[in-house]
Amino acid sequence: MRILYHHPLHPLCRVARIMLAEKGIPFEPVIEKPWERRVEFLALNPSGEPPVLVEEDGTVVAGGLAVMEYLEEAYPDPPLMPRDIPHRAEVRRIADWFLHKFDREVTENLVGEKLIKRLSGQGHPYAPAIRAGLANVHYHLDYIAYLAERRPWLAGPALTVADIAAAAALSCLDYVDNVPWDSHQEARDWYARIKSRPSFRAILADNIAGCPPPRHYADLDF
Amino acid sequence: MRILYHHPLHPLCRVARIMLAEKGIPFEPVIEKPWERRVEFLALNPSGEPPVLVEEDGTVVAGGLAVMEYLEEAYPDPPLMPRDIPHRAEVRRIADWFLHKFDREVTENLVGEKLIKRLSGQGHPYAPAIRAGLANVHYHLDYIAYLAERRPWLAGPALTVADIAAAAALSCLDYVDNVPWDSHQEARDWYARIKSRPSFRAILADNIAGCPPPRHYADLDF
Repeated sequence: MRILYHHPLHPLCRVARIMLAEKGIPFEPVIEKPWERRVEFLALNPSGEPPVLVEEDGTVVAGGLAVMEYLEEAYPDPPLMPRDIPHRAEVRRIADWFLHKFDREVTENLVGEKLIKRLSGQGHPYAPAIRAGLANVHYHLDYIAYLAERRPWLAGPALTVADIAAAAALSCLDYVDNVPWDSHQEARDWYARIKSRPSFRAILADNIAGCPPPRHYADLDF
Repeated sequence: MRILYHHPLHPLCRVARIMLAEKGIPFEPVIEKPWERRVEFLALNPSGEPPVLVEEDGTVVAGGLAVMEYLEEAYPDPPLMPRDIPHRAEVRRIADWFLHKFDREVTENLVGEKLIKRLSGQGHPYAPAIRAGLANVHYHLDYIAYLAERRPWLAGPALTVADIAAAAALSCLDYVDNVPWDSHQEARDWYARIKSRPSFRAILADNIAGCPPPRHYADLDF
């Protein structure tokens, strides 16, 4: 069986899980705690970071960006990227935004400080980082609203990895209850659409021992 | 004329410049200082980050990862990615390593603290960050040596964007004279090969007013 090593609160791991589900590719999810730096996992990905996909023939695909592009190349149906080259660039621009810029400005400051530090025993949350994350998130939700007002999905007429990347990042933040949905109705409407897809079910069922999500996390009518 | 907005000390911008040169695509380079947050530039890339490529027909390709993949898709000859799908994943794994992991662990701590802070008027270098960057760089040079011992180029038999990404990142670090070449002969041998390519000439000619590179920076026999 195909194996995906992942961590539930890692946005790029969530991208891989959602893409696999959208494409109907069966896989066995195995939780990897990157801070344990397991020797067997480092042999699969020397950077020590999930996700890693191991195909049935032994092919190892290591790292979030590599897995994202690999899944689209190896399993093109149904497509999660357009065929038009400039349009593909737009999808990657938005995916990159949520997987790197949002990560640096929001996710690391909130999910990182509040939950990953605790799970990995790296000490207490750093209050100034949390304040920065809480301030920064509005700008990103406004940007989702800006895009969603102009296009059916974030990068154009169809669901793409741009939506999946943004939803993966936001869903991690929602797990720690730091998405101010009440003041961002348009972003909420867009998220409700992707949240209700069958490919999102496993994400909504995530429940880390000792750190449960808030009640609205899995609620489709949040 | 095709325009590339770039900053000389931004690794992903260097990737774009080297790829354009390897593929023989003419372009006009325009230096963008991202900390100025120019309104006209933000209209091209709302994230505010170079590189941005503007094609002659007005197509805008924004952001380093989008430009990297776009150039390979739009101008496939000569190829800088293999055709085999698992092998492409290996190229992206290594490129991702040098564009994100290396950036976080080394470039931000050294180029960021010593030069970008000064150019952008963001204060003085933070000594603990510099110490961390100086400590971390050895591990990455060892990893280049590990790969280069086993393969002609970092990701396999041919030059790919994996080599270009690693060389782009290292060349920024070399600009601030923080690559300990003397204790990393194998990484130096690999870098000498890519440094001597015609596509690297413009990189080696970079010279920021008031912050010149060390003498060996442009020397092919360093």
